[in-house]
Amino acid sequence: MNLILLFDSDFISENTVKITGRRAEHVIKVHKAQIGDLLTTGLLNGKTGKGLLLSMDKESVTLEVNLTDSPPAPLPLTLILALPRPRMLGRTLQHISTLGVKKLILLNTKRVEKSYWMSPVLAEDKVQEQLILGLEQAKDTVLPDIILEKQFRPFVEDRLPEICQGTLGLVAHPGVPEACPRGISEPTTLAIGPEGGFIPYEIEKLSEAGLAPVHMGERIMRVETAVTALLARLF
Amino acid sequence: MNLILLFDSDFISENTVKITGRRAEHVIKVHKAQIGDLLTTGLLNGKTGKGLLLSMDKESVTLEVNLTDSPPAPLPLTLILALPRPRMLGRTLQHISTLGVKKLILLNTKRVEKSYWMSPVLAEDKVQEQLILGLEQAKDTVLPDIILEKQFRPFVEDRLPEICQGTLGLVAHPGVPEACPRGISEPTTLAIGPEGGFIPYEIEKLSEAGLAPVHMGERIMRVETAVTALLARLF
Repeated sequence: MNLILLFDSDFISENTVKITGRRAEHVIKVHKAQIGDLLTTGLLNGKTGKGLLLSMDKESVTLEVNLTDSPPAPLPLTLILALPRPRMLGRTLQHISTLGVKKLILLNTKRVEKSYWMSPVLAEDKVQEQLILGLEQAKDTVLPDIILEKQFRPFVEDRLPEICQGTLGLVAHPGVPEACPRGISEPTTLAIGPEGGFIPYEIEKLSEAGLAPVHMGERIMRVETAVTALLARLF
Repeated sequence: MNLILLFDSDFISENTVKITGRRAEHVIKVHKAQIGDLLTTGLLNGKTGKGLLLSMDKESVTLEVNLTDSPPAPLPLTLILALPRPRMLGRTLQHISTLGVKKLILLNTKRVEKSYWMSPVLAEDKVQEQLILGLEQAKDTVLPDIILEKQFRPFVEDRLPEICQGTLGLVAHPGVPEACPRGISEPTTLAIGPEGGFIPYEIEKLSEAGLAPVHMGERIMRVETAVTALLARLF
């Protein structure tokens, strides 16, 4: 936790917050903070800054906050990700949030098992929990928007062309001739497949909608590794 | 498991292997392979190729193998990594192995807790298990060499200058002016710190030994994310 993420409900006066639960415990036990310490804080979807530790007990920490800085710049990216298996989803959401993705579309594809959509890990509060852990890690405050697209074809035919428009459109796919570009700064739309990859029909439809297939070398990566590797290479 | 990694002990004749345990179970239950199928295989530290499924029962699979291809190219890298906390070590070893690192030095630093060196996850067979999972993922066969360096100063003063010699030496450290380079192909030595980072004294010693501090942007990443991000950006 490199930043204490604050919510409106934490404020007990204009510049004073009282935090409890996991965050207070972390400040007390991991940071081992003392009265008078200045801690890095930020308001959800708002500014970042410092919090002066005014008082604490076993269960709560009170800070006087001064939030004047902007959070780190977001990636200029819409990420389309085949819904990962539940065990991998949580960590992947954390990585995505840490790396600065602000628009995430979780997509159904042929090789996404139907049961994944039923997972409790996909519940809104569980997703938000993982995203917040990622934000706290990166000293960011801005939650990504997440859209669930449970039907491949209507999404790709009806909505994807508009999302792609005016962006660099890419789909990561092993074995294609074109290598993934490096160090770009333009708005980008990137699709990443499930374990086992997109099927040829899906690659065809994604290409038609404006995503060019690119590879990341001959090594096949797990989804969570691929997400981090692609974003680190692109931006 | 994108490749079935074979050991000398699996061979029951010159070109025939009988596998059991985790690998056989995976072929039977996950791949749902049938007699006559061609499966991707490779010999530990050797060639890759195909295995023709000759026969199977509930616990074993017999393949006729033909191994003629080279495994994917290794990264031209010596990676020096502050020993991660046990919970993160296993996954990080998998990522490292998947990404093609062949020389890994696990280093003690100020912010590595002493208890991490006692972890059962560091036992040779446990480490090898994680590395093999990473190789199977990337269709690679070559196990990384791992060296444990439990004393920072003798390593950095006595051995690191020689390791660095003739390579591009880098140490990842947030907040320094120089950005991490992209898309290089030269031999490289890269050091990555623990959670909380290297302390200033360590950065000074690593610089003296030939590693130039570089950053990966303003977002602070977890160790496992940073490893993947740095390698994907560099190579």
